[in-house]
Amino acid sequence: MIQISFPDGAVREYQSGISAMDVAKSISEGLARKVLAAKVNGQVWDASREITANASLQLLTWEDADGKNTFWHSSAHLMAEAVETLFPGVKFWVGPALERGFYYDMDLGDRQMTEEDLRQIESKMNELAKQNNPYIRKSISKQDAIQYFADKGDEYKLDLLQGLQDGEISFYTQGQFTDLCRGPHIPGTGAIKAIKLTSISGAYWKGDEKNKMLTRVYGVTFPNKAELDAYLLMMEEAKKRDHRKLGKELGIYTMNDDIGQGLILWMPNGTVIIEELEKLAKETETEAGYKRVVTPHIAKENLYLTSGHLPYYADSMFPPMDMDGEKYYLKAMNCPHHHKIFDAEPKSYRDMPYRIAEYGTCYRYEQSGELFGLMRVRCLHMNDAHIYCSKEQFMQEFKAVNDMYLKYFKIFGIEKYVMRLSLHDPEKLGQKYVNEPALWLQTEELVRNVLIETGVPFVEVKGEGAFYGPKIDVQIWSAIGREFTLATNQVDFAQPRSFNLSFTNKENEAEIPLIIHRAPLGTHERFIGFLLEHYAGKFPVWLAPLQVKILPISDKFMDYAKSVETRLRKAGVRVELDDRNEKIGKKIRDTELMRVPYMLVIGEKEVAENQLSVRRQGKGDTGVQTVDAFVEMIKDEIENRKSAE
Amino acid sequence: MIQISFPDGAVREYQSGISAMDVAKSISEGLARKVLAAKVNGQVWDASREITANASLQLLTWEDADGKNTFWHSSAHLMAEAVETLFPGVKFWVGPALERGFYYDMDLGDRQMTEEDLRQIESKMNELAKQNNPYIRKSISKQDAIQYFADKGDEYKLDLLQGLQDGEISFYTQGQFTDLCRGPHIPGTGAIKAIKLTSISGAYWKGDEKNKMLTRVYGVTFPNKAELDAYLLMMEEAKKRDHRKLGKELGIYTMNDDIGQGLILWMPNGTVIIEELEKLAKETETEAGYKRVVTPHIAKENLYLTSGHLPYYADSMFPPMDMDGEKYYLKAMNCPHHHKIFDAEPKSYRDMPYRIAEYGTCYRYEQSGELFGLMRVRCLHMNDAHIYCSKEQFMQEFKAVNDMYLKYFKIFGIEKYVMRLSLHDPEKLGQKYVNEPALWLQTEELVRNVLIETGVPFVEVKGEGAFYGPKIDVQIWSAIGREFTLATNQVDFAQPRSFNLSFTNKENEAEIPLIIHRAPLGTHERFIGFLLEHYAGKFPVWLAPLQVKILPISDKFMDYAKSVETRLRKAGVRVELDDRNEKIGKKIRDTELMRVPYMLVIGEKEVAENQLSVRRQGKGDTGVQTVDAFVEMIKDEIENRKSAE
Repeated sequence: MIQISFPDGAVREYQSGISAMDVAKSISEGLARKVLAAKVNGQVWDASREITANASLQLLTWEDADGKNTFWHSSAHLMAEAVETLFPGVKFWVGPALERGFYYDMDLGDRQMTEEDLRQIESKMNELAKQNNPYIRKSISKQDAIQYFADKGDEYKLDLLQGLQDGEISFYTQGQFTDLCRGPHIPGTGAIKAIKLTSISGAYWKGDEKNKMLTRVYGVTFPNKAELDAYLLMMEEAKKRDHRKLGKELGIYTMNDDIGQGLILWMPNGTVIIEELEKLAKETETEAGYKRVVTPHIAKENLYLTSGHLPYYADSMFPPMDMDGEKYYLKAMNCPHHHKIFDAEPKSYRDMPYRIAEYGTCYRYEQSGELFGLMRVRCLHMNDAHIYCSKEQFMQEFKAVNDMYLKYFKIFGIEKYVMRLSLHDPEKLGQKYVNEPALWLQTEELVRNVLIETGVPFVEVKGEGAFYGPKIDVQIWSAIGREFTLATNQVDFAQPRSFNLSFTNKENEAEIPLIIHRAPLGTHERFIGFLLEHYAGKFPVWLAPLQVKILPISDKFMDYAKSVETRLRKAGVRVELDDRNEKIGKKIRDTELMRVPYMLVIGEKEVAENQLSVRRQGKGDTGVQTVDAFVEMIKDEIENRKSAE
Repeated sequence: MIQISFPDGAVREYQSGISAMDVAKSISEGLARKVLAAKVNGQVWDASREITANASLQLLTWEDADGKNTFWHSSAHLMAEAVETLFPGVKFWVGPALERGFYYDMDLGDRQMTEEDLRQIESKMNELAKQNNPYIRKSISKQDAIQYFADKGDEYKLDLLQGLQDGEISFYTQGQFTDLCRGPHIPGTGAIKAIKLTSISGAYWKGDEKNKMLTRVYGVTFPNKAELDAYLLMMEEAKKRDHRKLGKELGIYTMNDDIGQGLILWMPNGTVIIEELEKLAKETETEAGYKRVVTPHIAKENLYLTSGHLPYYADSMFPPMDMDGEKYYLKAMNCPHHHKIFDAEPKSYRDMPYRIAEYGTCYRYEQSGELFGLMRVRCLHMNDAHIYCSKEQFMQEFKAVNDMYLKYFKIFGIEKYVMRLSLHDPEKLGQKYVNEPALWLQTEELVRNVLIETGVPFVEVKGEGAFYGPKIDVQIWSAIGREFTLATNQVDFAQPRSFNLSFTNKENEAEIPLIIHRAPLGTHERFIGFLLEHYAGKFPVWLAPLQVKILPISDKFMDYAKSVETRLRKAGVRVELDDRNEKIGKKIRDTELMRVPYMLVIGEKEVAENQLSVRRQGKGDTGVQTVDAFVEMIKDEIENRKSAE
């Protein structure tokens, strides 16, 4: 008998050699139907694989990231089977799962794959899926494996085999298709109930442009039709809300080859959003007792040697400038500069916690191929701050940071979010993790308690903490359900030591502070990219670059229109007057394209009655209002940062 | 007879060979007594030198910068005479005039000059000045000059002579002292009526540390005792107001060797000032129709080749970073980035003038020896903006910029200022100046008219314009009378062409805009350095990092004190509570050291009567007030940016 321990802490005895699927069946048939794979002692296995010693077991379903991953990898095999059936002689390279979906790279000879082919492959996949063929694992010797692919004439798999050791090679077969594969896979193809092949592209073999161009086919699959439909709808919507498209249309940002890739030029409309976000952050941080600082964008090499960023982070930093016999680097993070400010004047317990904030601009090197709109850039404006505190103050400070997140989520209407708490691995103390076992346990426990207390959804991940302490990655979902990583909070035991930071405690002793690194609004680049999608460019009034457009029906009403413009401008509203000699219909359409929240239409009646016809973005005509009433209403909407309903 | 034309446009006839001094005497003896030198056809001459052809003539007195310059250079000779009298055998290198005063480098052999020596030299100088010895010019052959200094044994002057051509060498003699000198000099030593030798330092011969260390003696002289006294008082005061001293005491800024010289770390108190200045600038600029942008701090080499900054400005730029086979530079100015934003979307006459502003951070290389506190730094936060306009719009735009300066001068209580209008030199069109003679004359005239119309004091300087257009340097004087160069405004015809900028005018043609570069608040670094001196660290309430300190006399009154603190904080006031267990006298002294504008003392009486005892920085106790009255008063002072009276 062996002992199997479950995630909820329960331990049960089973016959040695039992599979995860059998364990699931012993619990319930319903559960067993959902099982896609299993995590055994932290490793993902086929659900059918035999367990022969005491182990921890987690059954993986569609709800688990590893479950999805296995599902999509198996879908890639299913697609390969369909392709091979339809296009005999095709050769395959690799077919991994992606964050969403999968692809397979293949050599189709001279054949150009078409959209029509995709539809044909999809039906073949559906047909094969219905057969519910099991994915069968078979260990095979290197020699037999080479023989198999030599016979098949697939030089790509032969190339893959070269890098593998005898004894670690396995084949997976479902239906008529056999592939060289490490696995794991789902029990059978029947679980794949909804299939969409999304695109075809070219991909050089091994990513090297000197090699042959293979055909890469992307797809995504789901365990039911409803999820596929929801996904396709989301992707359709995401396309309309593409931040690069909206960013250009709305005059948010631009880039220029003479300046450089990944270096954003924020246009006037984007800068309004930046300034509103910074105003929000400053108000929030001032209220929470932060002070502000401003630091330069460069520093000498030595600073980054002390911080440990060099050499470990060197690949992500810009190359140095040689000046006066020293190397200067663009900063990739603000922490070392802030530590120097903490250290510039002696600190006592009266100064703690010491919280300093800066919308700091950092420069990070990303491969040019990885750059993507506002999402992957080389210059980032970060909502950064560092909190230096004693161990006793830590929990309260961390809770305050957490509360700040929740406050922001509310303001931006972010309804779905998860905190991902990354912990240390006790076995790697002193290697991957700073060797302070007590501090790790203590702060992890404090952080966990804060998350539990505030009731935010969170998951724990062992062995993914930062070198210097536990961290929390914040995942948020946009209005259309796409996931973004917003920001990271980190606890830091290491840098206070390397920078020799201390404060005099009440016992008149030098004490080393803890540091919390935090950036709830992430970077302007990523957050505004997110907001563009989230709001589809229809920003709430307080964030809208232009809040009101005044549209006189003809020049006769221009004096009144100008008086309204002046009135609104004095009230601090961002307003423009459309004084072009155009028809009102065109004026409205042009303004709607720019997603301006309010349009004030002014004609004979409005002037005569000293009123305004108010059109609200997305709602159309909302009736007439006096100027006073409109000013009151919009000021309230702006000052209270109301969301559009 | 020759014709002499005067600055006021008058032209008179004189005998050929007349001197400027004689011309002055022909006007009035009183004027002649004031004459120190003369500007003949734009060159500074001895007042005694004969004029033998038609010429323009400006008599130079103490009121003219060139008059002062000549006066101080002659004072250096007088000092040399005194030193030679007291320390025979001394050898001299060079002795130029400075912006204020003069120095002379000398080799005293083994002698260490002392403060006492300075006093002795001063009295000797006074004695020699009373003799009113004339400065007599004598042309001399190179051979005779070499003979003279070889006999004297002065190898430094012999070294100087090596670089001179025969026929251009002259000696000047006053009293017993003869020096190799190009001149010009004042008529006689009698004009020097007040003398102060200010300091001694070492200076390597020719600035090369491999050479011998010479003794440099600094001094300053005046035509009357009152001006010297005023100067000494100002210097005394300037020492107390030294921005480096105050910057440290008040927690404004710091620097750190690990980050680098000339790279300012703005501490929380300095950052408050930065944010208030930026708030002022943003309000002012928004009201004036500017839009805001945010641009990265780097760009590729090509951008600076287009702008012409490379190679002409390369020495002032940081060295490049080599990345992806390209050179990236830290920006030394924001203009090219702004031009790219102008150019990112097509512009029509409806978009003009297009005004974009950014507190842009620029990096400039300064020799480490030239770095000085906040005044000479390597990282500058500039109150930058660029106005793109048509020729027709130029005058109004330039006037608006000028008005903005005047607005700021008023807010900061800057009472003395001069605009220095630098013009082109028609003879250097196409070389030093862009070859657009009509545009030069036109914009110079427009700029001149604006200055005349607004009635600001200004001087014109021919041949000091920028390459691409006329510029205005703004000089301001601090409260203690020290002069600072605040900012530069420039008109630009060249960059719009090199960047191919254009807009579609009403005639539907592509038209090249003019650009105005402007930065009325200069850089944070220099302006805050100036403000520290100007206000002696006693900032007006709106700028003060901490506006109110609450000082309870004992812990018994802490609840009331806290309620006052909360009340003020809610009103947006920067307030702190001194909750230390200290005597009220110490609390007041500590707060005064930090130059906090308001102290609120709270004791038994104040709590009982629900009032506050208000102490105003520099005024002491100003009586009691209700909390409401105090809040109203300080809010008014902050919102209206009132100066301390």
